[in-house]
Amino acid sequence: MTHTTVAIIGGGPAGLLLARMLHNAGIDSVVLESRDRAYVEQRQRAGMLEQGTVDALRECGAAARMEREGLPHNGIELRFDRRAHRLDFPALTGGSSVMIYAQTEIVKDLVALQLDEGGPLLFEAQATGLGDGYVTYRHEGQEKTLTCDVIVGADGFHGISRAAVPSGRVYEADYPYSWLGVLADVAPSTDELIYAHSPRGFALHSMRSPTVSRLYLQVPNDTDPADWDDEQIWDELDLRFAIDGDWKLARGPITAKAVTPMRSFVTEPMRHGRLFLAGDAAHIVPPTGAKGLNLAVADVVVLARALEHWRRTGKDDLLDDYGDICLRRVWRAEHFSWFMTTMLHLAPGQSDYETRLQLAQLHRIATSEAAAAELALNYTGTV
Amino acid sequence: MTHTTVAIIGGGPAGLLLARMLHNAGIDSVVLESRDRAYVEQRQRAGMLEQGTVDALRECGAAARMEREGLPHNGIELRFDRRAHRLDFPALTGGSSVMIYAQTEIVKDLVALQLDEGGPLLFEAQATGLGDGYVTYRHEGQEKTLTCDVIVGADGFHGISRAAVPSGRVYEADYPYSWLGVLADVAPSTDELIYAHSPRGFALHSMRSPTVSRLYLQVPNDTDPADWDDEQIWDELDLRFAIDGDWKLARGPITAKAVTPMRSFVTEPMRHGRLFLAGDAAHIVPPTGAKGLNLAVADVVVLARALEHWRRTGKDDLLDDYGDICLRRVWRAEHFSWFMTTMLHLAPGQSDYETRLQLAQLHRIATSEAAAAELALNYTGTV
Repeated sequence: MTHTTVAIIGGGPAGLLLARMLHNAGIDSVVLESRDRAYVEQRQRAGMLEQGTVDALRECGAAARMEREGLPHNGIELRFDRRAHRLDFPALTGGSSVMIYAQTEIVKDLVALQLDEGGPLLFEAQATGLGDGYVTYRHEGQEKTLTCDVIVGADGFHGISRAAVPSGRVYEADYPYSWLGVLADVAPSTDELIYAHSPRGFALHSMRSPTVSRLYLQVPNDTDPADWDDEQIWDELDLRFAIDGDWKLARGPITAKAVTPMRSFVTEPMRHGRLFLAGDAAHIVPPTGAKGLNLAVADVVVLARALEHWRRTGKDDLLDDYGDICLRRVWRAEHFSWFMTTMLHLAPGQSDYETRLQLAQLHRIATSEAAAAELALNYTGTV
Repeated sequence: MTHTTVAIIGGGPAGLLLARMLHNAGIDSVVLESRDRAYVEQRQRAGMLEQGTVDALRECGAAARMEREGLPHNGIELRFDRRAHRLDFPALTGGSSVMIYAQTEIVKDLVALQLDEGGPLLFEAQATGLGDGYVTYRHEGQEKTLTCDVIVGADGFHGISRAAVPSGRVYEADYPYSWLGVLADVAPSTDELIYAHSPRGFALHSMRSPTVSRLYLQVPNDTDPADWDDEQIWDELDLRFAIDGDWKLARGPITAKAVTPMRSFVTEPMRHGRLFLAGDAAHIVPPTGAKGLNLAVADVVVLARALEHWRRTGKDDLLDDYGDICLRRVWRAEHFSWFMTTMLHLAPGQSDYETRLQLAQLHRIATSEAAAAELALNYTGTV
């Protein structure tokens, strides 16, 4: 039986970043991750970092590779009605921008740092139970117990932590569409992300690096990725990104293909006694707007500060405020993600009136500084 | 058989204002109104005038009583979560404000001017048909024909004009709630309009004059106003406007009570040959945001200018642009009205998640200048 100050369930970006921040503050922790290292380092997730996320990685000394390989972006492009409109983030927000750097790369960086300098990070360590001051887990064929002062549940939507917060109020919504996401070995056909509203549904052109494109298509729920061959995917992307004027989508070998459902979810409170939820364990957003990772980092920044304060002073006051502080940002992001999602996707059976409302909103953003600023402030996380 | 340059079907604010503008430009017209004068002058409608509407009334010399009796408003109040937040329109929009002056008073002013100075305004003249260069109508027991160069259909949603524009594309939506509106002989309990989101549904506090309050409650569709006695109405208003802190709704005798359903509707195009649709004949918005009258006036301002140009030069170019120019504003207002409506009303069966999204949007407007400005620009018609 080992003891640690903070038991962190989940070795995704939230858990790993918290461990790093606590290590820097001289607070010991143990991270329990149910999957193996290779799996964790290859999970494809979002890759748009708000300024606050970039700052958090810098402050804890985990930004070296991001500084070299990340792609700073000063805007996005909206496409609708066969036209393209760029939003200039620094001009609209008073200087904010974003960084494109994949979550999976952040995880690799944090894993390497943790194994090199930090406290224990156990892979294939499946948390099986938790209570006041302990977590039980299965590791190397054995049932083990980790005793601790504080537990942080950063084990995602399907983890065990959320269920351990009793009498939580749950808010949720599903969406009648999913994303088919592909990785392709081809230079992106755009310098910045393109969000396209089209009569055939939503499409998104993102990128992982100067040589790897990340592309998404709105598809019906329960779509089997195998139903889409590569040529069909490229043809459909061509149709959805089409504008009047010169633009061409470069094709290349597709190296990964997956379907992601979309969900909104919030559980309140984010705390029960000495158990604190962070990231996807407490809240889920649909991927339009790329807020999931940024919310997880924002949680962890607040929590690390509160834990340092508690450790230094013995006072609970910042820990008591943790949920309220986080939930303000969470609900802002929930609303923004819903706004982006419902503005850009075509729901099955949507009326022509509803489609015209979407186009009216998009046209407004393209022509009004106030409407464009409101999107840009939310997108960059400046709020 | 009489002849006129412009036959105007409908003697509501759109038709009457157009007749006034044309009269000032030396273009003769005849207005055919199916109802009698008393009915037209007593129909209760909206009463929030955008700056552009005020300007249009001033420019055509129909603003004398509005200048004396209208109430200039520099903002509105939003209530939600038992708190009140004021939006300061001039500060948010660079100087725009609105005027509270009831549509029914505008109609009285325009009727008096038309009968005094303008061309023929026929009451109880029911248009029965129309074609290229003529309108048939029933008046004083006889079928009559009015020949004309141009027909303007300002006869509302239920008039005959809209059906005379063939191959029109129709966009529409209904809402799962209505408004119970009352007039009360009591000084308003507020200087500016109050829009309230509450767990019991939407409420709006408006006013007609310093001694007459106009109040609205969200009610289920098909509500019979007789099902609500006066005390029930005041009790329900109290509950929906309740905030933490000192505020009291003054009660008084209720003098009128009616239920209004809510609908969104747009028909395109707004023209067929020499027939032009204006106001509710072409588009309907739900009343939240008070855009209906303002859109009708905006149509008529564009149409009067185009008709003057056509009459002076013989050229159709401005008439050809009429629909496109109007529809940009129409779709902006359709979207804004939908936005205000869906943010403030509780739909039957709405999930807790959806309610929290409404509150997140309201909280954002109360705390972000960009979000508040976007509402204020739309509300004042500054767009």
